[in-house]
Amino acid sequence: MDKTGIREAIRRLAGRRIEGMHHNDFLLTWEKTAEELAAVFDVAEILRAMRAMDVSPRLYDSGLAISIFRDNSTRTRFSFAAAANLLGLTVQDMDEEKSQIAHGETVRETANMVSFMAEAIGIRDDIFLGQGNAYMREVAASLDDGFRQGVLPTRPSVVNLQCDLDHPTQTMADALHLINHFGGLDKLKGKKIAMTWAYSPSYGKPLSVAQGVVGLMTRLGMDVVLGHPEGYTVLPEVEDLARKQAAESGGSFQVVNSMAEAFTGADIVYPKSWAPFAVMEERTKLLSQRDSEGLKELEKRCLENNKRFVDWECTEEMMKLTRDQSALYMHCLPADISGVSCAQGEVQASVFERYRIDTYKEAGYKPYVVAAMILLSRLKHPADALMSILEGERSRCVR
Amino acid sequence: MDKTGIREAIRRLAGRRIEGMHHNDFLLTWEKTAEELAAVFDVAEILRAMRAMDVSPRLYDSGLAISIFRDNSTRTRFSFAAAANLLGLTVQDMDEEKSQIAHGETVRETANMVSFMAEAIGIRDDIFLGQGNAYMREVAASLDDGFRQGVLPTRPSVVNLQCDLDHPTQTMADALHLINHFGGLDKLKGKKIAMTWAYSPSYGKPLSVAQGVVGLMTRLGMDVVLGHPEGYTVLPEVEDLARKQAAESGGSFQVVNSMAEAFTGADIVYPKSWAPFAVMEERTKLLSQRDSEGLKELEKRCLENNKRFVDWECTEEMMKLTRDQSALYMHCLPADISGVSCAQGEVQASVFERYRIDTYKEAGYKPYVVAAMILLSRLKHPADALMSILEGERSRCVR
Amino acid sequence: MDKTGIREAIRRLAGRRIEGMHHNDFLLTWEKTAEELAAVFDVAEILRAMRAMDVSPRLYDSGLAISIFRDNSTRTRFSFAAAANLLGLTVQDMDEEKSQIAHGETVRETANMVSFMAEAIGIRDDIFLGQGNAYMREVAASLDDGFRQGVLPTRPSVVNLQCDLDHPTQTMADALHLINHFGGLDKLKGKKIAMTWAYSPSYGKPLSVAQGVVGLMTRLGMDVVLGHPEGYTVLPEVEDLARKQAAESGGSFQVVNSMAEAFTGADIVYPKSWAPFAVMEERTKLLSQRDSEGLKELEKRCLENNKRFVDWECTEEMMKLTRDQSALYMHCLPADISGVSCAQGEVQASVFERYRIDTYKEAGYKPYVVAAMILLSRLKHPADALMSILEGERSRCVR
Repeated sequence: MDKTGIREAIRRLAGRRIEGMHHNDFLLTWEKTAEELAAVFDVAEILRAMRAMDVSPRLYDSGLAISIFRDNSTRTRFSFAAAANLLGLTVQDMDEEKSQIAHGETVRETANMVSFMAEAIGIRDDIFLGQGNAYMREVAASLDDGFRQGVLPTRPSVVNLQCDLDHPTQTMADALHLINHFGGLDKLKGKKIAMTWAYSPSYGKPLSVAQGVVGLMTRLGMDVVLGHPEGYTVLPEVEDLARKQAAESGGSFQVVNSMAEAFTGADIVYPKSWAPFAVMEERTKLLSQRDSEGLKELEKRCLENNKRFVDWECTEEMMKLTRDQSALYMHCLPADISGVSCAQGEVQASVFERYRIDTYKEAGYKPYVVAAMILLSRLKHPADALMSILEGERSRCVR
Repeated sequence: MDKTGIREAIRRLAGRRIEGMHHNDFLLTWEKTAEELAAVFDVAEILRAMRAMDVSPRLYDSGLAISIFRDNSTRTRFSFAAAANLLGLTVQDMDEEKSQIAHGETVRETANMVSFMAEAIGIRDDIFLGQGNAYMREVAASLDDGFRQGVLPTRPSVVNLQCDLDHPTQTMADALHLINHFGGLDKLKGKKIAMTWAYSPSYGKPLSVAQGVVGLMTRLGMDVVLGHPEGYTVLPEVEDLARKQAAESGGSFQVVNSMAEAFTGADIVYPKSWAPFAVMEERTKLLSQRDSEGLKELEKRCLENNKRFVDWECTEEMMKLTRDQSALYMHCLPADISGVSCAQGEVQASVFERYRIDTYKEAGYKPYVVAAMILLSRLKHPADALMSILEGERSRCVR
Repeated sequence: MDKTGIREAIRRLAGRRIEGMHHNDFLLTWEKTAEELAAVFDVAEILRAMRAMDVSPRLYDSGLAISIFRDNSTRTRFSFAAAANLLGLTVQDMDEEKSQIAHGETVRETANMVSFMAEAIGIRDDIFLGQGNAYMREVAASLDDGFRQGVLPTRPSVVNLQCDLDHPTQTMADALHLINHFGGLDKLKGKKIAMTWAYSPSYGKPLSVAQGVVGLMTRLGMDVVLGHPEGYTVLPEVEDLARKQAAESGGSFQVVNSMAEAFTGADIVYPKSWAPFAVMEERTKLLSQRDSEGLKELEKRCLENNKRFVDWECTEEMMKLTRDQSALYMHCLPADISGVSCAQGEVQASVFERYRIDTYKEAGYKPYVVAAMILLSRLKHPADALMSILEGERSRCVR
């Protein structure tokens, strides 16, 4: 996208109804309007194009972006860091091990204590079903309270960096990858995407990517097929939502119990392991009871059950079933690649290798998606600000 | 405070005799003159007002602020990070676990090694009685040596982020909260503040807040009452100092062994647990001997002794004894709230809840106090620099 | 160096043939031409002089510098942080404990995932013989691939922050210290430097400093003597290289098995412990086999063997053998100082104390060397950019 293209994209953004994004959080894609989702895509692309031209979209001279990672992370951690840095914010990590949180401090208090000079708070909390998203909302409510009562000079925006329900920075990056791959948001209508379970020798992987993908792609008029072995269901609420959204967007949604069926005629395949919803519920319960014997037993049982479905692997044979035998393969990474990162896993090595660079590009949209979410929540008139940044041509670097 | 108010505050600052602060450390409030303390309050308020107007008080285009936390921290860590960021400095944490310090390296050496491009060094070292402040002075002396001998291009300023003696960033924030609450520094004269011990189910909490509060508030002409059960004394030197300072400032200082007596007629109450001075001495000795049996025995003995004083709780009943039954409740947070963070603790839940937002605001001054301490130690003519920043109106953010 | 001096240095830099440095890595000094090494010295001195004048050489408005430390580090970590900050980059640490790397992810993938907005990647990986430098090259090749295939908008530069073969940021800082000490790069010709083993009560120290010193100083026309007890050899390839380089540069290289012989007539001594090459090979093998019994046995054997050479200590007696009894003592720090950091170690306390400030200054060049390596790899026309920075006189700080 050249300067003319960026101007055009900014004008398109200016026409969108996105007042609701200002000083608001990004917790679930399905809470956002179609216009708001489109605005995120617009801004992510504008920022990416600006950076390619070495125009700096630095909004802030100073200010903090707080990160709270309750689970390990590489990609998302670096995406958040890159996004914050691009906008001029400094990341301060809230490392619960180095804090006094264990002391019995309330979420309400911590949320305010870390936010005196914060513009954004990114949170990953994906381990406990029923808890991650609830924690984010508790933080958000605490920030509302602190701002209303004069504790905070501004209300920082919360960005969901993966919870038990959704992984919006991932799925929005996935969608942006598709938009670029197929040549536009409107080109996604009628495309078939197979979001399927795949075998993995590990256990307890979150459901949020699968849920997030069907929760978002059904908004975009796509034919979404969720495929998994019997029993590997996702949250019923998300299935209901997907069905309803598909009807509204002119797409479709179905659940099948065969990988081959899901792959047949698909334009896009997204094979990825997850733990069944019911297992995650049981696991959450055992974890809260600190029942380590029960947890071990559950893990053993699950891994054995998983083994019944080792044929849920994205092989060359499976890929032959897809449209023109050449569906686009997607993954949030890291993938369990058979013979590379494990003996047998989600995807055959030759398939992964062929699409490896595509998956890297897919991941490469995430920093811009995060930056777009932050920017849209901070600026009242994002299009005006972006136009003035573009015409100001502040250089990101000395040449 | 509007722009006119800021100009006025800067002019007031310009009239203060604070030459001694330039390239000097902030280790103990009682080493600073009244003018110097007032300058910190001035600058903290100026910075806070500038930020509220989105004028950026960024002093540095680049430069490091080093943090050395030898104990867990949330509030102070984030305050230091926010202060550094506001001034344009980047925090580099000296994590002793990831360093080669265990190797037997001298403090003298480490202090220089981390300081080649540092402007400020914040240190928390509050665990060992007789050691924390001494460590800070050893760092400071090492920096003097390194600067004098041409190792360091500038002499970074050391800021005490809590030691065994004092917690100046906390107590200065506390005082600024009082100044804003009561409408001016002069309004604090004659106000009664009850700094009291309170029961907590935990053990070994530092004495530095209690010592810091009596060490500072007696400077401000306040009637300071230190209340604790028999045996829970603070450092004798600090008591002597408080007595002497109170006499000089026209305030008063007394020690009482009854919470009710301390609270009676108080304008402000600050109930907070700490370990008796003698226990901290014993603990420091046992720790240095790595006597884990002795430590366990000491902890058990202390917790049992603490239990004799569970009635040292800031209850609604106690609050009724205060002036107009409505003293301002203060706490450095996190508080041990009965029924919230523990079964029985320092403060009754309904009391804490009524003052919760006040305690959050109290904490909210800390980033500005830290920034003021750094700024005043770096600039030879702080008032001139602040005026030029104000009139320059460099924006902190794009709107 | 004043402004005129800086201009002169920039003009000298402009005359150097250093096209090969642009978008290239800094992995081993012996892969660089003499002109390229000289350019690093030039730029480091230019940056140091600019900073002393408070002219900010900030190249970047935003951008990340990634650090990957697979071993503990203080000096190098802070040097990298300071260098990045000086150039306007923000350090994002790739902490393998907090990432999903253990998951079986490929180096190829991780290298791309952390690099979407990175300009430089600093890596320390010095524990395993045959692995550290290989890892850096694997990262570099992955970045080449990612950039070529459109995953990365730019190819970040890899800087070796210590590997199994070389420690170029250390040795280049060492050389810059010598240049300043003796008054110019040309003054080093014919100077005798004794890089010797020294006794230490610890075990398993990397060979990279010793190898790096002989690998670099033989380029500079120096008379390099490598001294160690029999069996404490460094990598044979590095010895061959040193011999060849010395012949080319008009210097000399010899290996001796007596500390006294090495010290005799030396202008510079660099006594430092390391583990013999053969031991490191055995250790690497045992580590890869997770043979903890074998490792303990090896450590015991080595420490016992070390004890046979406790007289390899840099004492006052030894120093008397050097030129005019006053060779310059060097160390990469921290040193094992007898009676200070250990009972008996590499250097006598009185010797270390006399040269302590010199070793601190030696360390102080490292941030500028790292910054120079990054700058030279990022800028196509570094001299032009530096001249425009100098004349622009962007202030690093408010006065």
